[in-house]
Amino acid sequence: MADDVDLAQPVAPEELSALDKMPMRDDAGDIRPEFVEAISHAVQVADTAFLKEIVGELHEADLGDLIEALDADERAPLIELTGADFDFSALNEVDDTVREELLEELEPETVAEGVRELDSDDAVELLEGVDEEVQDEILEKLPLSERVALERSLDYPENSAGRRMQTEFISVPQDWTVGQAIDYMRETPDLPERFYEIYAVDQWQRWQGAISLDALLRARRPVSLADLVDEDRRRVSVVDDQEEVARMFGKYNLVAAPVVDIDNRLVGVITIDDVVDVIEEEADEDLKALGGVTSDEELSDNFWTIAKGRFAWLLVNLATAFIASSVLGLFEDQLQQMVALAVLAPIVASQGGNAATQTMTVAVRALATRQLNPNNALRIVIREGLVGLINGLAFAVITGIAAYAWFKTPGLGIVIGLAMICNLIAGALGGILIPMVLERVKADPAVASGTFVTTVTDVVGFFAFLGIATLWFGLK
Amino acid sequence: MADDVDLAQPVAPEELSALDKMPMRDDAGDIRPEFVEAISHAVQVADTAFLKEIVGELHEADLGDLIEALDADERAPLIELTGADFDFSALNEVDDTVREELLEELEPETVAEGVRELDSDDAVELLEGVDEEVQDEILEKLPLSERVALERSLDYPENSAGRRMQTEFISVPQDWTVGQAIDYMRETPDLPERFYEIYAVDQWQRWQGAISLDALLRARRPVSLADLVDEDRRRVSVVDDQEEVARMFGKYNLVAAPVVDIDNRLVGVITIDDVVDVIEEEADEDLKALGGVTSDEELSDNFWTIAKGRFAWLLVNLATAFIASSVLGLFEDQLQQMVALAVLAPIVASQGGNAATQTMTVAVRALATRQLNPNNALRIVIREGLVGLINGLAFAVITGIAAYAWFKTPGLGIVIGLAMICNLIAGALGGILIPMVLERVKADPAVASGTFVTTVTDVVGFFAFLGIATLWFGLK
Repeated sequence: MADDVDLAQPVAPEELSALDKMPMRDDAGDIRPEFVEAISHAVQVADTAFLKEIVGELHEADLGDLIEALDADERAPLIELTGADFDFSALNEVDDTVREELLEELEPETVAEGVRELDSDDAVELLEGVDEEVQDEILEKLPLSERVALERSLDYPENSAGRRMQTEFISVPQDWTVGQAIDYMRETPDLPERFYEIYAVDQWQRWQGAISLDALLRARRPVSLADLVDEDRRRVSVVDDQEEVARMFGKYNLVAAPVVDIDNRLVGVITIDDVVDVIEEEADEDLKALGGVTSDEELSDNFWTIAKGRFAWLLVNLATAFIASSVLGLFEDQLQQMVALAVLAPIVASQGGNAATQTMTVAVRALATRQLNPNNALRIVIREGLVGLINGLAFAVITGIAAYAWFKTPGLGIVIGLAMICNLIAGALGGILIPMVLERVKADPAVASGTFVTTVTDVVGFFAFLGIATLWFGLK
Repeated sequence: MADDVDLAQPVAPEELSALDKMPMRDDAGDIRPEFVEAISHAVQVADTAFLKEIVGELHEADLGDLIEALDADERAPLIELTGADFDFSALNEVDDTVREELLEELEPETVAEGVRELDSDDAVELLEGVDEEVQDEILEKLPLSERVALERSLDYPENSAGRRMQTEFISVPQDWTVGQAIDYMRETPDLPERFYEIYAVDQWQRWQGAISLDALLRARRPVSLADLVDEDRRRVSVVDDQEEVARMFGKYNLVAAPVVDIDNRLVGVITIDDVVDVIEEEADEDLKALGGVTSDEELSDNFWTIAKGRFAWLLVNLATAFIASSVLGLFEDQLQQMVALAVLAPIVASQGGNAATQTMTVAVRALATRQLNPNNALRIVIREGLVGLINGLAFAVITGIAAYAWFKTPGLGIVIGLAMICNLIAGALGGILIPMVLERVKADPAVASGTFVTTVTDVVGFFAFLGIATLWFGLK
């Protein structure tokens, strides 16, 4: 990012690392194809020393990107060649499909060795997607205590706080002083890799409060931890849903939160980096759902997997398209008498569909963030209805004039205008009420709303336009 | 969250706070209407003591939610009544519209008092949206040094790191020991409210490296800071875009990053809580853009503002709908000869539009996260084309059979099937190429893609279906 402002002294050539000599990324931040080729070549000729140097210097996130950039058959050899120098947390940065294939391909011993170096949350994330069978093979190679701990975490429901938490944390008795706590941290070799706060617990490991590191550093050694403890800090229950946890982090600006079991015993900690992943995942899911794509589709999937995944939603859409067209079918005779109606009908349907999509997008997002709730639901529904009415009137005039100018049929402008008003109001109400009803019946509004909403606007649009036309022009 | 597992001792009634007696939220986490009524009543009768107690106890995020739940004319009085007990960072938690109205309504003195209590990043966030004139009035009431600092931050471009950073941070000389650094923090009264790392600088305040608090706490007092410093830590330049910064935080799991100016001098720090806001904002923007809603539309806006905001996009859509219908218009005679074509044409267009939307959604998201880049673009385009072909074939068969079954016209199934294949391939290619081209010409793919993509599928859908039908059935 700020490399262009780096005023470091020039470095002698012999001090340059392999990465300095051959940077991974170009100025735009994209991976350089030459870099991938060099790695790929080194894998083929088994240049272990070079690979270990590169792999050891790369950040786990960059290492993940490199793995994805390599051909599928070079990934496992790279990991086997670099052995203990390969940081397995890099595999949590790649697409699920790539990770799962890779873990099945690697020797269970290699994976077990890699897993042992990870924090528990990273280890769980790594293993949770792989086949039960492969998972068991890997777990078997781990020392008993680590295996038991991982199995316990994997037993929590998917997407629960228990799955996301790391079980490494620092807990101390509340009656210690700041000095005792600092000495404890200086003397304990096996602390978590990174931490932002420590927790006070009682003799049964029950949570008493949190002490942030800055508070600890500001206080003098004789001060009692009890004076620093924040007892009001928000906790998470192991069974809480990760989306709920993410919302709490965002709302209360947390960097870490203690996770407690049903007896209020401290069992783990969730940190902001995991929460950022959850926030991005959830945003991704909502966006894909609204676009009619399943949440497990990934960029690295092959065309066959993707085509199958998208088929189901297109099939539902086809069914609704036939329903809409069957409304047109009811008016076959009228369409034949006045073919302008056939030409204009899609305009009414499309305009309603787009207005409804606007409303639905806002509604789905507001439901996800809990901004739309029983307290303001009625106000928002009425408001959307009014928005539909106003834009309905505006587009009635515009479309009416355009339609008359095109076909020069007296009355056609009025007919399409009236239909436009009906359909924009229907779209607005459908766009807000359908997601709300889906949320109420515990369905995901993002996934299902689109189909229902556009069916409403297609059907109402065709029916209103052709129905009003039939009456106005006395067609039969 | 975990209140249900709280095993705290029962508390004597006289120790209960106002909030304990009258909780703000119900079990589902929604604000209780009774609570809002009680506050609203207290504002009307100016029950200052009660309001100060409540406002003092609420977290800033909850206080923000309360402000939004109140009637517009009760918000300013609540703040004026509670004075110094009101935490102005709460105003950063409300919708922009609500905040801006409120800041214009409040006395500049009140706002200036509130701003003085905030960290610089919160102060900037609070002031950046209000009118220049109101902003100047508020800034005038601030002490000179604070005013100058805020004005400098407000001078950075919108959405830049300079705007998001806080200028309170801890920098120490690299040749200090751990003991000196800890003593410095214990003795300095005016430290930032929260911090996660401290920075080593040289005598010109140039950035040397970061030291995380956990590293500091683990080390013994005589250890030199130089041994703990992470010199490879990623920095941000003041002019970097906030979206770029957020991507870096997410990728490298940061909780804080130093911000340096063009001479590599440390000028501020960006923390994860601000980044989480950015991530949510950006996700929100992409989602709204794909749904045809402008990013500044807010749930608290009135119907008139919203209707105006959505009008522009609907107008663009109307124009494209007329373009699509004009294709139908080209085939007026054929439609009259065979009205089944008018009934079925929307099915072809709709199915193509939905397939294109799937592709486009994935493309827009992958471009935003940089997963789709020049290295894999060709592979992804070919893959999407194949997906379009496969689903095109599948739906050609299904739709062909359904259309024949409906109208019993020999050949109609083949005609609609061929059109379906054409349109699904066109949709797939449009869905991927249009966002890529928009990105290349520096337009936001999320905003503009939708219109272009569905125009492509409507036009191709109608043209392919009616064109093939004209040839097959020899219509004229």
